Amino acid sequence: MRDSLMVFSGTSNRPLAREICECLDIPLGEVNISTFSNENIFVQYLESVRAADVFVVQSLYPRPSEGLVELMVMLDALRSASAGRITAVIPHYSYARSDKKDQPRISIAARLIADVLVTAGADRFLTMTLHSEQVHGFFGVPADHLQGAPVICDYLATTDLSNAVALLDMGQDKRSARYAQRLSLPVAVIDKHRISDTEVEIKTFIGDVGART
Amino acid sequence: MRDSLMVFSGTSNRPLAREICECLDIPLGEVNISTFSNENIFVQYLESVRAADVFVVQSLYPRPSEGLVELMVMLDALRSASAGRITAVIPHYSYARSDKKDQPRISIAARLIADVLVTAGADRFLTMTLHSEQVHGFFGVPADHLQGAPVICDYLATTDLSNAVALLDMGQDKRSARYAQRLSLPVAVIDKHRISDTEVEIKTFIGDVGART
Amino acid sequence: MRDSLMVFSGTSNRPLAREICECLDIPLGEVNISTFSNENIFVQYLESVRAADVFVVQSLYPRPSEGLVELMVMLDALRSASAGRITAVIPHYSYARSDKKDQPRISIAARLIADVLVTAGADRFLTMTLHSEQVHGFFGVPADHLQGAPVICDYLATTDLSNAVALLDMGQDKRSARYAQRLSLPVAVIDKHRISDTEVEIKTFIGDVGART
Amino acid sequence: MRDSLMVFSGTSNRPLAREICECLDIPLGEVNISTFSNENIFVQYLESVRAADVFVVQSLYPRPSEGLVELMVMLDALRSASAGRITAVIPHYSYARSDKKDQPRISIAARLIADVLVTAGADRFLTMTLHSEQVHGFFGVPADHLQGAPVICDYLATTDLSNAVALLDMGQDKRSARYAQRLSLPVAVIDKHRISDTEVEIKTFIGDVGART
Amino acid sequence: MRDSLMVFSGTSNRPLAREICECLDIPLGEVNISTFSNENIFVQYLESVRAADVFVVQSLYPRPSEGLVELMVMLDALRSASAGRITAVIPHYSYARSDKKDQPRISIAARLIADVLVTAGADRFLTMTLHSEQVHGFFGVPADHLQGAPVICDYLATTDLSNAVALLDMGQDKRSARYAQRLSLPVAVIDKHRISDTEVEIKTFIGDVGART
Amino acid sequence: MRDSLMVFSGTSNRPLAREICECLDIPLGEVNISTFSNENIFVQYLESVRAADVFVVQSLYPRPSEGLVELMVMLDALRSASAGRITAVIPHYSYARSDKKDQPRISIAARLIADVLVTAGADRFLTMTLHSEQVHGFFGVPADHLQGAPVICDYLATTDLSNAVALLDMGQDKRSARYAQRLSLPVAVIDKHRISDTEVEIKTFIGDVGART
Repeated sequence: MRDSLMVFSGTSNRPLAREICECLDIPLGEVNISTFSNENIFVQYLESVRAADVFVVQSLYPRPSEGLVELMVMLDALRSASAGRITAVIPHYSYARSDKKDQPRISIAARLIADVLVTAGADRFLTMTLHSEQVHGFFGVPADHLQGAPVICDYLATTDLSNAVALLDMGQDKRSARYAQRLSLPVAVIDKHRISDTEVEIKTFIGDVGART
Repeated sequence: MRDSLMVFSGTSNRPLAREICECLDIPLGEVNISTFSNENIFVQYLESVRAADVFVVQSLYPRPSEGLVELMVMLDALRSASAGRITAVIPHYSYARSDKKDQPRISIAARLIADVLVTAGADRFLTMTLHSEQVHGFFGVPADHLQGAPVICDYLATTDLSNAVALLDMGQDKRSARYAQRLSLPVAVIDKHRISDTEVEIKTFIGDVGART
Repeated sequence: MRDSLMVFSGTSNRPLAREICECLDIPLGEVNISTFSNENIFVQYLESVRAADVFVVQSLYPRPSEGLVELMVMLDALRSASAGRITAVIPHYSYARSDKKDQPRISIAARLIADVLVTAGADRFLTMTLHSEQVHGFFGVPADHLQGAPVICDYLATTDLSNAVALLDMGQDKRSARYAQRLSLPVAVIDKHRISDTEVEIKTFIGDVGART
Repeated sequence: MRDSLMVFSGTSNRPLAREICECLDIPLGEVNISTFSNENIFVQYLESVRAADVFVVQSLYPRPSEGLVELMVMLDALRSASAGRITAVIPHYSYARSDKKDQPRISIAARLIADVLVTAGADRFLTMTLHSEQVHGFFGVPADHLQGAPVICDYLATTDLSNAVALLDMGQDKRSARYAQRLSLPVAVIDKHRISDTEVEIKTFIGDVGART
Repeated sequence: MRDSLMVFSGTSNRPLAREICECLDIPLGEVNISTFSNENIFVQYLESVRAADVFVVQSLYPRPSEGLVELMVMLDALRSASAGRITAVIPHYSYARSDKKDQPRISIAARLIADVLVTAGADRFLTMTLHSEQVHGFFGVPADHLQGAPVICDYLATTDLSNAVALLDMGQDKRSARYAQRLSLPVAVIDKHRISDTEVEIKTFIGDVGART
Repeated sequence: MRDSLMVFSGTSNRPLAREICECLDIPLGEVNISTFSNENIFVQYLESVRAADVFVVQSLYPRPSEGLVELMVMLDALRSASAGRITAVIPHYSYARSDKKDQPRISIAARLIADVLVTAGADRFLTMTLHSEQVHGFFGVPADHLQGAPVICDYLATTDLSNAVALLDMGQDKRSARYAQRLSLPVAVIDKHRISDTEVEIKTFIGDVGART
């Protein structure tokens, strides 16, 4: 039961899935994903998944709607083909920023996405660096939440940070402050106010970002 | 409780929703639907829906994925805003043709779509002329299934059918034959075989389609 | 975990269950099924089923109600005895013809049966030659849908078909046409109209069923 | 919403349903219940039930399996016809004696029956004089549990009880003792041991059942 | 999968959990359970439980509320840490006496407790000597119900019972009578009436409890 | 249906419930809540709640476990007594700080509490000033999330703030910054690090808290 590990990839990021399989030294599972002329998505697995421990790699980016629906169809086809356990691996979890009701009569869509993916067949989730750590609690099934910070900080540490300041937004969670600590950077704090989808205004500025000579 | 009927429209077919509201002599409900620069869909109702008997009009056509995700977000926002009863009105139910497993390891997506919409908040469905009548059974909550045939036949009856033959595909359900009856047309039967998404081959031809003079 | 395969039989078709076990070269599981004087069904398994991969063979024919209730009690007793995985094997799935709402205020009972069997404990289904292929989508858990056509055609091919015509009912699904193809038979099409439970009327007749000399 | 009370009857006890309707001064609802030649049950409501507060009267006696399946089909048809609230009224709840696991690998069928009826569509239950009072807890939705004792005792009080003794079985619940109290009868206690479906043996006898002169 | 058996203990009865582990010859699992200054309970497992077959030992006694909430938090943390199967071992199941509605508008709390523990993550239960055997049916998942009678009777048999009488309460289930049989004691029956939480009145007394010389 | 509004109070904060009822000009509902000598909680409503729109006021403070279990029993008793709609009003929602997994193998208890309360019978929630706004998304049913900030700021504005500085913790959400804005206070930012349950260390300090003369 569930002895064989299988990895399949949606269309959002096949190169990543291939790299994962190389690390695991297993072949990427064969699945046919196509779109009919009426834009309906069609998924067919080309190898048996019975009782297998299956991981589906699919980001909800850059096309969140297609990515989500394709993932749902992939999960459903796995379940009905009697896969043993199904883990949705979602490196970029779109809608994660829809994590609160800061206006009346809106959807906390990050919770909605988690719920419909469970309905579609996900037994577990594997995702990373969610917009806020609380989003972890939106998953009604086990979820592993990986952190990108170690990798990102390791990279930044190889660059020249002598003139850098960590600029934190009030209301960001602790994770931002941890970056500054890891990189031994001075910290300044802003109070960002979102004017529109693409514009923000800085309302308050605290700390010193002058030359550090 | 649930005394007020409200109708809202997704972006797929606002003119239809407006016509429905005109028939009902009520205003179309105000809802703000927009898409962020990261392609995430945002929905906000601009009037209270508490305890209302709400109908959301949204076809899953021509963009099935966006249509579906938008509808899910609309339903979720209604539920969390304490709407009294929520009916998803889906004139064009995409994926309805994914209603059987004619190949191994595929999804019966028509069932999947029904299930995720219930998860998102639909208490009832109102749809029409599904690909097969059995799809009605895919809905786990009450669904009203309207038939387009009467309207379509009334229209056809106004045209010149003196030279027409009803061409039925084996495997189509009874409804096709009913068209021929309503319109008093002679019937011929074909056995259509789908070669690809856009091409079909006719394998068998039964009946007479010669001049009727 | 789930290493041991076990097969149990309801009372509807024990000879079939025995033949299955012979093919698998395992003994038919021991279960006591009896009916009290008040017509209540009693089921007791006489061997441990803990963690076993259990298959229960039970047709819903010829007594659909008794067959269904007996199967539900069998499934429930398995689940509460900690069986590892439970598959309901239903060679004849009664109520499969109740697959659409061709009249108002009726039940799509084929969906109902699937739902209550899942409630009773079925993790998976194995059934065959359902009335329409869409019924497959009524099962909310994995279902394997076997086709009887190959076996039936093999048998028919051993008989004298020189004078035979395949008579298809409009509204039957594609599977009927496949019989004709496999057996290289000429095809005629009828439009059958059901007058009552046991009587049908043929409304339309298309094709040639004259002598084929 | 749910302003109209409607009562429908299954086939098990129509005279009772009619008497209930007479007490309520409403007509018994019209429903067509028939059985096909293949023994499948067919149910069609002949009047709209939309938003109605519907009560279905159906005992699971004398034919528990048919009674149960018929009730399930009735409930499912009501739900899919958008009834407002559905109460299953079950004067005789068969399988109520299957309320414990006094042997290994059996079903607590009284719980199973409650669960499948909820799946079929019951929002509430109304039943009476269950085998043990704990069975009330088997219902996952609201249930009103009526007691027959007052009516039965009133009747018995009109008979000659001068020579009567209340004979209680150990293991019966308190309700038995309440009969004796109501009727001011002397009490004797037995320890009944069930040998088979229809035979019991009395193992212990405590108290005096001699003449009371 | 689920190859490793692990046993963890809540704070209610660690010595029992340790004895169980000694019998099984495995170490008691390491878990940190503490209470914050705001009385919130905190649970952290100190070893991986992925895919393990985990048993959590926790009585709901002597502090039923703390015991229950602690158990729920323990189960939830196990599930979200991807434990393979989770069994709640509850030697003393508080609220088991709340198993019927002997007054209007009360809770059958024994059913409620079972339901919330399943929500919290219990896949199975192991409990013993429930107040009535019907409580077994309150569990919606498999439950093993152990009986304390053999152990208790074995102990009593080592004492002087020459002057003892088994005093049974009407309304107690059969199990009480079985004690008398096992120990060959004469039986008397009382009808106990509960006046308050801590006081009972004996209304009826049947049988002989005089000297047995 | 659901015409009558009823408010009941748990034992955690009866004065608040009474004040709410005074504002609504309705009497506080009568319910008997007591604790047996075995610490089991007993709840009985002393008036009918059938079809009523019921609100239960209960904080999970100062005794979170008792408060939670008492609330669950209250909800369950309401549901089984056929209340029309049940809203849990939880002014202080304990465990709200358990809203993320900042350590492995712990519970996101704020989600767990929401789930078990839904299982117990809550149709809706009304709570306030949750530890983070994301906790709102933990509720699977509609929840109204009130903000205490307006009331608190109005009060603070009546005090002497001439020498005050708003001290914000990095990682707190935007709401903190809104206090400073409302009160026109200068802002300083700290990076608080929790050493233990009751001690914190300030790691970073940004901004000027000197005299403002």
